[in-house]
Amino acid sequence: MNNLIEIVSIGGAVVAVSFGAVMPAFSEGRAIAAAMEAIARQPEAAGTLSRTLFVGLAMIETMAIYCLVLALLLLYANPFTG
Amino acid sequence: MNNLIEIVSIGGAVVAVSFGAVMPAFSEGRAIAAAMEAIARQPEAAGTLSRTLFVGLAMIETMAIYCLVLALLLLYANPFTG
Amino acid sequence: MNNLIEIVSIGGAVVAVSFGAVMPAFSEGRAIAAAMEAIARQPEAAGTLSRTLFVGLAMIETMAIYCLVLALLLLYANPFTG
Amino acid sequence: MNNLIEIVSIGGAVVAVSFGAVMPAFSEGRAIAAAMEAIARQPEAAGTLSRTLFVGLAMIETMAIYCLVLALLLLYANPFTG
Amino acid sequence: MNNLIEIVSIGGAVVAVSFGAVMPAFSEGRAIAAAMEAIARQPEAAGTLSRTLFVGLAMIETMAIYCLVLALLLLYANPFTG
Repeated sequence: MNNLIEIVSIGGAVVAVSFGAVMPAFSEGRAIAAAMEAIARQPEAAGTLSRTLFVGLAMIETMAIYCLVLALLLLYANPFTG
Repeated sequence: MNNLIEIVSIGGAVVAVSFGAVMPAFSEGRAIAAAMEAIARQPEAAGTLSRTLFVGLAMIETMAIYCLVLALLLLYANPFTG
Repeated sequence: MNNLIEIVSIGGAVVAVSFGAVMPAFSEGRAIAAAMEAIARQPEAAGTLSRTLFVGLAMIETMAIYCLVLALLLLYANPFTG
Repeated sequence: MNNLIEIVSIGGAVVAVSFGAVMPAFSEGRAIAAAMEAIARQPEAAGTLSRTLFVGLAMIETMAIYCLVLALLLLYANPFTG
Repeated sequence: MNNLIEIVSIGGAVVAVSFGAVMPAFSEGRAIAAAMEAIARQPEAAGTLSRTLFVGLAMIETMAIYCLVLALLLLYANPFTG
């Protein structure tokens, strides 16, 4: 039963990366949909809109990256597995 | 009972890639639908709209790729299986 | 049963970083969607809007970072694991 | 069974920081969305609006910080762990 | 089983500070959103509105502080732990 830590690490990495994909993806889709609608209403503001959108997407993306980093740390830099 | 790690790895890879398909696919569909509507309303802004859309889709796609990478790592570069 | 602390630490790090991705991502998506709509209605206020938005996104981002910090502390600076 | 206090401390720190991320993030997103809408309707009041918004965000942020402080106290200044 | 008091104290502090973050944060976000809308409709009343808002936020904030104080008392001035 000594490999329970490894099992929990694998399961935890899976859970982290799954949660890190569900909600950020939903939020990015919502933001992009709103941007499409906004550009259709004000095509001349497209530059400002897409610049603001990309900064926002980058900030949402960081959260998915946090989850991925933690998952990789659990697998390859786990301090508790010998 | 020594192959429990392998069982959890296989199950985890499946869960990760499944979650990585559910929500990003939904979000991309939503974004593309909004883009269709927007191009229909402003056909002359189609270039800007599709450029913004493609960058956004690429950022959503990364999350599905994170999940796929983790699933492949669990299968082929698993540090806990001998 | 001495490694129960380590299992709880790993599980706790996963839970923390998952919660730290779910709700902040949802809120940022909502804020960005509202900003898109606002810039479309008042393109001349785009500078003020995006400045206010970025400060707000930074404050939401801090919460995700708190969760990541706690997860990393549990893994690498855990005071209870020998 | 002497390490049950430590397990409860770790779990408690995780719960505290998770709750401290969920609701404050939701509230900040809501406040920022309302501010976006308000600035779009009254661009000339943008200074007052963003000043009021930032004070409000700071007060919501304090709650997330309370939770983080309690989590860190449980880990590093716990009076019950020898 | 003498340390059950300490376990309950830690759990109680976590529950207190978590509940003390959930609802006050929601209420403050709601109040700020309403203030944003009100200032947008009556910009000339912005001074009165923001003054009233800040007093209200301070009174909501006190509840979060009560919870934090009780949590800290449970940890550092607990009368039942020798």
